[in-house]
Amino acid sequence: MELNGVEIEDTFAEAFPIKIARVLITGATKKWALVAAQEATGFGTSVIMCPAEAGVEKVVTGNETPDGRPGAYIQICTFGYKSLEEQLLKRLGQCVLTAPTAAMWNGLPKAEKQFDTGFKLKFFGDGFESEASIGGRKAYKIPMMQGDFVAEHSIGAQDAVAGGNFFIMADNQMAALAAAENAVDAIALEDGTITPFPGGIVASGSKMGFTNYKFMKASTNEKFCPSIKTKIKDTKVPEDVNAIFEIVINGLSVEDINRSMKAGIHAAVTVPGVKKITAGNYGGTLGPFKFHLKDML
Amino acid sequence: MELNGVEIEDTFAEAFPIKIARVLITGATKKWALVAAQEATGFGTSVIMCPAEAGVEKVVTGNETPDGRPGAYIQICTFGYKSLEEQLLKRLGQCVLTAPTAAMWNGLPKAEKQFDTGFKLKFFGDGFESEASIGGRKAYKIPMMQGDFVAEHSIGAQDAVAGGNFFIMADNQMAALAAAENAVDAIALEDGTITPFPGGIVASGSKMGFTNYKFMKASTNEKFCPSIKTKIKDTKVPEDVNAIFEIVINGLSVEDINRSMKAGIHAAVTVPGVKKITAGNYGGTLGPFKFHLKDML
Amino acid sequence: MELNGVEIEDTFAEAFPIKIARVLITGATKKWALVAAQEATGFGTSVIMCPAEAGVEKVVTGNETPDGRPGAYIQICTFGYKSLEEQLLKRLGQCVLTAPTAAMWNGLPKAEKQFDTGFKLKFFGDGFESEASIGGRKAYKIPMMQGDFVAEHSIGAQDAVAGGNFFIMADNQMAALAAAENAVDAIALEDGTITPFPGGIVASGSKMGFTNYKFMKASTNEKFCPSIKTKIKDTKVPEDVNAIFEIVINGLSVEDINRSMKAGIHAAVTVPGVKKITAGNYGGTLGPFKFHLKDML
Amino acid sequence: MELNGVEIEDTFAEAFPIKIARVLITGATKKWALVAAQEATGFGTSVIMCPAEAGVEKVVTGNETPDGRPGAYIQICTFGYKSLEEQLLKRLGQCVLTAPTAAMWNGLPKAEKQFDTGFKLKFFGDGFESEASIGGRKAYKIPMMQGDFVAEHSIGAQDAVAGGNFFIMADNQMAALAAAENAVDAIALEDGTITPFPGGIVASGSKMGFTNYKFMKASTNEKFCPSIKTKIKDTKVPEDVNAIFEIVINGLSVEDINRSMKAGIHAAVTVPGVKKITAGNYGGTLGPFKFHLKDML
Repeated sequence: MELNGVEIEDTFAEAFPIKIARVLITGATKKWALVAAQEATGFGTSVIMCPAEAGVEKVVTGNETPDGRPGAYIQICTFGYKSLEEQLLKRLGQCVLTAPTAAMWNGLPKAEKQFDTGFKLKFFGDGFESEASIGGRKAYKIPMMQGDFVAEHSIGAQDAVAGGNFFIMADNQMAALAAAENAVDAIALEDGTITPFPGGIVASGSKMGFTNYKFMKASTNEKFCPSIKTKIKDTKVPEDVNAIFEIVINGLSVEDINRSMKAGIHAAVTVPGVKKITAGNYGGTLGPFKFHLKDML
Repeated sequence: MELNGVEIEDTFAEAFPIKIARVLITGATKKWALVAAQEATGFGTSVIMCPAEAGVEKVVTGNETPDGRPGAYIQICTFGYKSLEEQLLKRLGQCVLTAPTAAMWNGLPKAEKQFDTGFKLKFFGDGFESEASIGGRKAYKIPMMQGDFVAEHSIGAQDAVAGGNFFIMADNQMAALAAAENAVDAIALEDGTITPFPGGIVASGSKMGFTNYKFMKASTNEKFCPSIKTKIKDTKVPEDVNAIFEIVINGLSVEDINRSMKAGIHAAVTVPGVKKITAGNYGGTLGPFKFHLKDML
Repeated sequence: MELNGVEIEDTFAEAFPIKIARVLITGATKKWALVAAQEATGFGTSVIMCPAEAGVEKVVTGNETPDGRPGAYIQICTFGYKSLEEQLLKRLGQCVLTAPTAAMWNGLPKAEKQFDTGFKLKFFGDGFESEASIGGRKAYKIPMMQGDFVAEHSIGAQDAVAGGNFFIMADNQMAALAAAENAVDAIALEDGTITPFPGGIVASGSKMGFTNYKFMKASTNEKFCPSIKTKIKDTKVPEDVNAIFEIVINGLSVEDINRSMKAGIHAAVTVPGVKKITAGNYGGTLGPFKFHLKDML
Repeated sequence: MELNGVEIEDTFAEAFPIKIARVLITGATKKWALVAAQEATGFGTSVIMCPAEAGVEKVVTGNETPDGRPGAYIQICTFGYKSLEEQLLKRLGQCVLTAPTAAMWNGLPKAEKQFDTGFKLKFFGDGFESEASIGGRKAYKIPMMQGDFVAEHSIGAQDAVAGGNFFIMADNQMAALAAAENAVDAIALEDGTITPFPGGIVASGSKMGFTNYKFMKASTNEKFCPSIKTKIKDTKVPEDVNAIFEIVINGLSVEDINRSMKAGIHAAVTVPGVKKITAGNYGGTLGPFKFHLKDML
């Protein structure tokens, strides 16, 4: 298969279930909404050793927010609801409540699962807080040095999908990187998904388990390592490829990830030097969700 | 006291001891060094509920880095060395090793305390890694999808200072915020310090303990809350002040924090609408370090 | 009238006819499309002394561009088609043809008026250029150091509207500025309009003619100057207002300007410290287009 | 010759005399200083068809500015003082006087040649302006909607150098571009120079005169065009090179350009995929200034 002259391998990305909480952070301006959103989603690339996977989903105008101010949706992901509630409390309490001009709103008001994170955070007000209804949302006004912090009572969460992915193979590291940046820019405009790695990009695609060391949860995927391709018998790095970046996508639904994978792949193949697009799977043993690249054309 | 027509209260900031590890992250360009630095220092505002306090200290050119590429120094802070080592392993392993084009270098090569974080991370290479000497540093090359990740063997840490601070009081929230932004921009050019809160700014200066609720570690500092100043008998909010932002500064030494507090205060008072600068202390009961505002003029 | 608690004066903005050419600039990534777009639209605030009024209209994804790469629409405005053609040739030839990875496309392919700017620029190829059809557009590939520059044959232009505007009055300069920034961010997402001044904002709203000097085309509008309001008898600066910024909007149609004025005003009034919104007119003597603020609520 | 494994051709850049005016623009914050600086230096890549060559030289803190606010030095360049004065009046009057929170200061107060641009712009005040001494500079306060605009009386200019340059040759367009970006970032930290092209980078290095067309002032330099290298007999594009970007540098002195060329070249060769650095000259017939690459090692 080909797209824009770039080979698309007939394979699939394998993804697995996760829980996602979704928060809408508003600010006095777009800049300040994003400052809070970025702090709250940092140290959030992979649940292997981060306390959560997290990222900014999309930016919205004041037309789409309860307080009429610009905002950013973020997603926070863990395997269970208990750890998710803890992460919400910590990340929103430490990185949004503390952020200049930020307010926090429920990003999944219709979800069945609701955490009372706003209610819990209101106790920071030490009795000086008050209840308010803003844009139809039940919220709290907590007096602070900057003025009032506004927190909606509940934050919703739901079953979701983690680990949607594709690999960008190019003849040169800078070409692979520009293609990855272009893919992440395109995905950033889609609803429902995040790319939790730094800048949305994974430099270090890994395999589960190990070959030589016995104590690692994950290790480098040597079959996809260009710098040692001549030493690995069954390398999967094509001869004309010298760098690979992976884009990992989490999202609220299979449809969301499908749409974002498609947008990202279509953006990646426009960059000169890109040779091939493939995807990561474990032969279907890892997760129940399969995203076939042939459906992305 | 006055500076540029703004009242400077004759008080002091009170700070306390912390441990700081310092890492130099380089990248193919300044942008990519910063992408890794920001991910690695996110979710890092306050040790009250974040696993570490963390921030970007400063950006450097290739003249000052072992591999000749542009870089960013970051600091990661916790109360003890054990938790610091754990944070280094997790944040560098998940947010720098995974970041496009990033490499990690020891930011305190002369410190007595050294963690072998690079050595531990090399096992991600699953036996395909190799040792290298780059710019005089003992390092590892770990084959990855993007090419090789380079990690220096050791990362140094030292006794340091947390909680340097000052408060910017203005007649209007946007004036206080522009002044805070200006202060953070100025501090970003100084060596040795970070401003760990979102955008470098604290919206929610707190008091230790509580007034009304009995179960909070920290709660809003109601005496500094403009929106309820008429209800609080001994409010410390001047009549013409309607918003306050705090700048919190961690640093390698007392001298570093002194210099950054001075730079920040001088920048803040140039913004129209700023009425007063003060600082947070607990009467000398919290920490051994005192930063007197009269020394900042 | 009021919006979000802010007074809206019952007045109108007065606008006048202009010619607008519209160009779509694509790049390898969004960043590089914007680098070219910003250079090409600089030194373009007001035709009083700039050779054109110019600005970036909006950013688009590869789904909406002939070459599948991300892009930015720009508008270039002058009073007549002759000067407009000259500006197109100079700005596209010097700021887009020279820009890394940029390509130029017709932003008004259905307009009656078409300039053959791409055809003229192809002569830079000195005979080495070739014709191509890309995404259904007739274009030229001009060999250059970076590779090929792609220029569509024609660039369209049309009758349009300049000088849509509103004034943001606030109690403090930083509040007025944050509100102006918020308004410009909102307008940037609307189709068909630009805000040609620096950062989209006018600090120096002017009157036509003069009071004291006899040789100026335009001079400060002293009735709207907060710093001298106590000296000007018929000042229009309310007592609680200490800073005013103006947003000036050019656009392809009356409808486009209406939509952008509305979006901008709704964004501005959410910022704390904003006291009043009004607009600039000359009693109907300047231009045939009137935009009534009462229609923006 | 080699630097970091990259071939450095033993050749020289040829540069020519120009006049440069230097202006220091300050703003409420770094962001707003840069907004004015960028508008004022736009549409300023090459005097072939732009009214001036212009760029941002460097950013400075409030410690180095007359009003204690952060600032940016810009340079505006033309061949003669008459056109330079006209450009100063237009660019500062339309893009700095109009910019939010900006002020303008003399960037060459000790130069022999001084233009009274601030004096001329004060007439915008229509008699309501006043004189002031700020940071030891003779200046005017011009009442405007935003508050007062401050303009220093004089702006200095001097004989200077244009056209310092080097070429970055890489195996891939994205590698050449990342290297060019890295070079421009490094040069931005040096005193005294600007890189006037879009993003500091030239995609379209040209030759004087023509080969096939008779009416062009400048045309593509076909010997350096990778896409037609197989068709050009005496091509100078090495076999393994597929993209070239040029960095053009203007500066106050030969020493400034030397320093910036060196910084840029050292930054460029760290990017993977860069194959060769060379420079543009006309055999010594164009200008009196020669910058030998062997002096850059």
